[in-house]
Amino acid sequence: MITSTKNEQIKNITSLIKKARERKAQRLFVIEGIRAVAEVPGQLLHAIYYVEGFADSAEGQAFISDIHAKAPNAPIEEVAKTVFNSMSDTVTPQGVLALVKMQEFTLEDVVGATAGRVPHVMILESLQDPGNMGTIVRTAEGAGATGIIMNNTTVDIYSPKVVRSTMGSIFRVPHIVVKDLSATIEQLKNDYRISVYAAHLKGEKYYDEFDLTSPTAFMIGNEGNGLTDEISNCATSYLKIPMEGKLESLNASVAASLLMYETHRQRKNSGV
Amino acid sequence: MITSTKNEQIKNITSLIKKARERKAQRLFVIEGIRAVAEVPGQLLHAIYYVEGFADSAEGQAFISDIHAKAPNAPIEEVAKTVFNSMSDTVTPQGVLALVKMQEFTLEDVVGATAGRVPHVMILESLQDPGNMGTIVRTAEGAGATGIIMNNTTVDIYSPKVVRSTMGSIFRVPHIVVKDLSATIEQLKNDYRISVYAAHLKGEKYYDEFDLTSPTAFMIGNEGNGLTDEISNCATSYLKIPMEGKLESLNASVAASLLMYETHRQRKNSGV
Repeated sequence: MITSTKNEQIKNITSLIKKARERKAQRLFVIEGIRAVAEVPGQLLHAIYYVEGFADSAEGQAFISDIHAKAPNAPIEEVAKTVFNSMSDTVTPQGVLALVKMQEFTLEDVVGATAGRVPHVMILESLQDPGNMGTIVRTAEGAGATGIIMNNTTVDIYSPKVVRSTMGSIFRVPHIVVKDLSATIEQLKNDYRISVYAAHLKGEKYYDEFDLTSPTAFMIGNEGNGLTDEISNCATSYLKIPMEGKLESLNASVAASLLMYETHRQRKNSGV
Repeated sequence: MITSTKNEQIKNITSLIKKARERKAQRLFVIEGIRAVAEVPGQLLHAIYYVEGFADSAEGQAFISDIHAKAPNAPIEEVAKTVFNSMSDTVTPQGVLALVKMQEFTLEDVVGATAGRVPHVMILESLQDPGNMGTIVRTAEGAGATGIIMNNTTVDIYSPKVVRSTMGSIFRVPHIVVKDLSATIEQLKNDYRISVYAAHLKGEKYYDEFDLTSPTAFMIGNEGNGLTDEISNCATSYLKIPMEGKLESLNASVAASLLMYETHRQRKNSGV
């Protein structure tokens, strides 16, 4: 049993919870909670930690033997209660956390080429709110988006709050972080023949007036400032979402959800 | 200038920020921030407080004289810096907050009867997340929903986090809190001929397969538990939102947004 907060493993977990830089360097992130850990694909489990006493109940034992069965090489460690609570990121720790390996996706995966699908891509520029980010990943799975592309000033998709709010979708929606977002958008347009839409005041047509059954990508900008001119200038077309009343904009994850589900609706109705 | 945190007004503001019960008793709530306070309709402003020094700049002076012009009877008080920061609910206080009177809406307002509109109502049962609540109010304005009905175990719509995330829509979307939600739903059905839809696993048709141009209401349940049986049994029809992958549910505010914007899309296309 690990009994000290000065233990090297514990210090490393704490730093992986807090620092995007460490997560990136080690290609590892932290997931907390019984159900969340149970949903991690076995080959991605790097190590599992549980609070002292957790294995005393029949449920706790069953949980641990299930984890061991699907990830036989991942070490499973018991941790003293005070130590466990000191590293937990949640208000009510459930007594289980795991170090998880990041998946390595390619642009091929994100545009759906690997799975033989029609591209349906979300492009995120400098999104900052972890809740919005997690909600977009979760909705992307529901709407059947093929993947997500982010620039490197977008909130870290592996931060604990984002991971939690994806509800497991983070393992099922291909995603990549790119340094040069405009170069990647040019690739989408030129190499994959994808129409890239920006929600923008310049938009002349509503989002449901475009044919979204062909290869499609949508750009979503920062919550406060929207898309930069550099990125919105890369768009194939500008679209608008109708807004009644005096509202100036929708929440970023709501706008993204409307665009993804309109794409889903059109493809469902036309049998794509 | 108010210089003590023991000042009765300051103590009252702190308790209005923290306690839903106090807000309800006084029919007052707190709004923070320059832009947010500027957006409050003049007749709802009860009192305005600014941090010492705020009025020294030309912008600060202009702001205060604008506020005074639209709410000539509302007192405007200067507050010492340490006192102001002690009561602020935000991480980076902008130096202005206001006590705002709650509006009193009726069911007539919420169903759009007062404004001569076709009912488009959101019914919220025990929603808990302030961000979801605020996002639903904001999207309701954008989608042209006529109003929102909540039961009294839904998160307080006047809590500072909800108010902030409505982006001013709280003043423009009629809303009421009711004790007996199922009785109110019966009224919607019987007195206003509104079809009440529940997003539910029992749903046999997709949300875009219903005619939403006629009087419509949607029920949204608690984030973790969904709708109770008591409330979902009041529904006229069950609908489902399609979900790809292994996803079990969408975020509550995303589901609400998709339903509201589908209603908007149908009404726009049919000229309602």
